[in-house]
Amino acid sequence: MLFFTQCFGAVLDLIHLRFQHYKAKRVFSAAGQLVCVVNPTHSLKYASTRCAAAQTPAEQGALPPCHHHEAVHDPQLVPCTCPLFSCPWEGHLEVVVSHLRQTHRINILQGAEIVFLATDMHLPAPTDWIIMHSCLGHQFLLVLRKQEKYEGHPQFFATMMLIGTPTQADNFTYRLELNRNQRRLKWEATPRSVLECVDSVISDGDCLVLNTSLAQLFSDNGSLAIGIAITTSKVHNAEAEM
Amino acid sequence: MLFFTQCFGAVLDLIHLRFQHYKAKRVFSAAGQLVCVVNPTHSLKYASTRCAAAQTPAEQGALPPCHHHEAVHDPQLVPCTCPLFSCPWEGHLEVVVSHLRQTHRINILQGAEIVFLATDMHLPAPTDWIIMHSCLGHQFLLVLRKQEKYEGHPQFFATMMLIGTPTQADNFTYRLELNRNQRRLKWEATPRSVLECVDSVISDGDCLVLNTSLAQLFSDNGSLAIGIAITTSKVHNAEAEM
Repeated sequence: MLFFTQCFGAVLDLIHLRFQHYKAKRVFSAAGQLVCVVNPTHSLKYASTRCAAAQTPAEQGALPPCHHHEAVHDPQLVPCTCPLFSCPWEGHLEVVVSHLRQTHRINILQGAEIVFLATDMHLPAPTDWIIMHSCLGHQFLLVLRKQEKYEGHPQFFATMMLIGTPTQADNFTYRLELNRNQRRLKWEATPRSVLECVDSVISDGDCLVLNTSLAQLFSDNGSLAIGIAITTSKVHNAEAEM
Repeated sequence: MLFFTQCFGAVLDLIHLRFQHYKAKRVFSAAGQLVCVVNPTHSLKYASTRCAAAQTPAEQGALPPCHHHEAVHDPQLVPCTCPLFSCPWEGHLEVVVSHLRQTHRINILQGAEIVFLATDMHLPAPTDWIIMHSCLGHQFLLVLRKQEKYEGHPQFFATMMLIGTPTQADNFTYRLELNRNQRRLKWEATPRSVLECVDSVISDGDCLVLNTSLAQLFSDNGSLAIGIAITTSKVHNAEAEM
């Protein structure tokens, strides 16, 4: 009798071990992606004048960029593309990344696929979560913004912009993916260039948009994990040429 | 010289033919899916009392279903699940589909993957686009609703519900996909049972939600094409058992 009890116990242990292994495998495969914790920043630009507010509707979403400096000495100079601060800096496109890192302390991550983990989603709007992503020989700016387009109803807007020209941006496709609780939401699009104002992209609604209720469904303990992947989009270019 | 010109012309023709073939292939593969044109219906339920409005917040989203009849003779009877009309009908779950077809004239489509083409997206809220989808031995109800949750700001809500019990619904995963203009939006979730009120699902925001601007980006000539696919979700069940 004791023998059978022990045998039964051993079988149960084996089943338990198998489940543990299965669970560990799932966690491990998830851990294969680089997870980057991004803390929120209360936007200082919002408090005073935002470029979108200063523009006429016809100007919004159109190039040249949204920060207009009165005296532009060199047409190749671009303004600071930081969505957080009204910054008087201007320089060549090639040095925008180092300006954003050094002056505005925006982190940069390497890797084809990363997980952007935005913390403290409950903080009141306007709030931004920002990171740079280095991939396929280019740098991208990922912006998650909590904003009240309709008073009293904050929404979340997520977009990815290439730190490069609109022509360069057309060569890529970015994907943002939320996955939790048997629900999955994927947004795929061509990134816009940082020379187009991030405020315009968000006011046009041409990005991943989440209501508060959906954001809560995908959040875990106040944090929202967004899977990010960037690929080259040769097919799109072939179609455009046709 | 004429020979070379003719050769050059022939090469150009070949290139053109190849592009035509490529285009035709794309159109053909798109045409492989059954496209169903769905016309809008102005919801009559909204005009008077909607079940969601009659419920207390604690009741919303909870079973039993949202239509409460004062005298229920048989606990196995379910009320009419049509999202459009306040209908006094009740019957067994097995005959809900024939009631929806015969009384409420809701079309039913067969096929694993279909394209739901909602017309006249510009019509004012509240408006519903509804169809039944027969797949994997079950029937599903697809509801696209234009509704003003915030006054003056209509949004689109799309969800798929199983005409069956919540336990049966847990065996499936549905996917709604929008794809146009180099943008793609995918929503994947477990369908809810029609015994849960569609109004509750929409007020909870547990569905695909589109702002007007996003809906316009995905629309073509006032119509919105939603690709629909249903699969069985054995993996989810295995995880739930663990």
